[in-house]
Amino acid sequence: MVRQERAIRTRRAVVEAAAAVFAERGYTAATIAEILERAGVTKGALYFHFDSKEALARGVINAQISDDYWVPRELKLQEWVDIGMTLAHRIPKEVILLAGIRLSADIQGRSLFGSAWPAWTQLVTDKLVEAKARGEVLPHVTPRETAECFLGAWIGTQFMSEVVSDWTDLNDRISVLYNHVLPAIATPAALIRLDTAPDRGARVVEEVERQQRESPVPTEA
Amino acid sequence: MVRQERAIRTRRAVVEAAAAVFAERGYTAATIAEILERAGVTKGALYFHFDSKEALARGVINAQISDDYWVPRELKLQEWVDIGMTLAHRIPKEVILLAGIRLSADIQGRSLFGSAWPAWTQLVTDKLVEAKARGEVLPHVTPRETAECFLGAWIGTQFMSEVVSDWTDLNDRISVLYNHVLPAIATPAALIRLDTAPDRGARVVEEVERQQRESPVPTEA
Repeated sequence: MVRQERAIRTRRAVVEAAAAVFAERGYTAATIAEILERAGVTKGALYFHFDSKEALARGVINAQISDDYWVPRELKLQEWVDIGMTLAHRIPKEVILLAGIRLSADIQGRSLFGSAWPAWTQLVTDKLVEAKARGEVLPHVTPRETAECFLGAWIGTQFMSEVVSDWTDLNDRISVLYNHVLPAIATPAALIRLDTAPDRGARVVEEVERQQRESPVPTEA
Repeated sequence: MVRQERAIRTRRAVVEAAAAVFAERGYTAATIAEILERAGVTKGALYFHFDSKEALARGVINAQISDDYWVPRELKLQEWVDIGMTLAHRIPKEVILLAGIRLSADIQGRSLFGSAWPAWTQLVTDKLVEAKARGEVLPHVTPRETAECFLGAWIGTQFMSEVVSDWTDLNDRISVLYNHVLPAIATPAALIRLDTAPDRGARVVEEVERQQRESPVPTEA
């Protein structure tokens, strides 16, 4: 069991190191030697988890989509808002998210290691299907179409925020984006109860971290 | 006068050649030698118009925003839709647009040669201010905020369409984007009269080209 936990930690260290190198240099210029050095693990340990640079990129992309900050809400549309707003809040601080976004947008690379776009589209589609079944979404809405439209808009907004403000205005921009899209798809009764304020992401992250402190998941030290 | 016209043609040939090279190689890898060769003009002719690679990039960016396909409409919101839909229709066919988009999104380059983003934001802001004065836009809307939100969304949608479909689905995606944003900002009386169909861009371009054929602007041959 201790051995298994060590393996999980090593894997995490390698993914973090790979993310840092990919985010700095891009996929093509990154080398396994540099990732090894930054992770501080042996070559054998790295290759035990990832047998190629492509596999490392896939590892970073998959680590991007975790359910660490997903809290069930009365409104499924609020869960969708929370996904977008917690991501906006976390991106400037978490190198795995940042690297995952860059890799997913790498036109040459995606044929080698894939992209998180299909997983994000599916996740939001599922939320919108649930929201529609509960009467939160207007009848004409096609969940997959809205999910794809929002993903494209989210990616461009994130990119613009990086370029013009180094992400300092990302929470504001994603809040404005939700406010421009939700009226086209949500019922009035849902709209009135949604929270899309710019600090929504920060509050959800704080809520989850407080819960974790108060009732931590037992782990073997 | 003939001399002036020759200068205009040379300038255009240089901008087209620069756009082709920037679009293919990106700004950093592009060389003036390659642009010269592709333009088929002398070094002196090129430097008469553009004294550096930065100036060439600025020339491409500025050429992107032209009023060739802007037709006055009853609704100012329709003029805004037409800007976005004609661009979507033209991008896969016009290397200057393509190169302009790439250069405007070049994080390192923009400090050297600028970006078309401020000009696009201003253009859409002006349309929305006019639309608001005419009662087409809801009172709570802040034109600049909506213009920036839409630009970010448009850029991401264009990028996603390039990556997943080589732009073949761009008209559909931009149509869907307008349909997701307009209900948040337009009055019902304006919404009912707007045309956001995927083939809107193609129809506007055809309309303008037909007008030009039927009553061409006189030029000296």
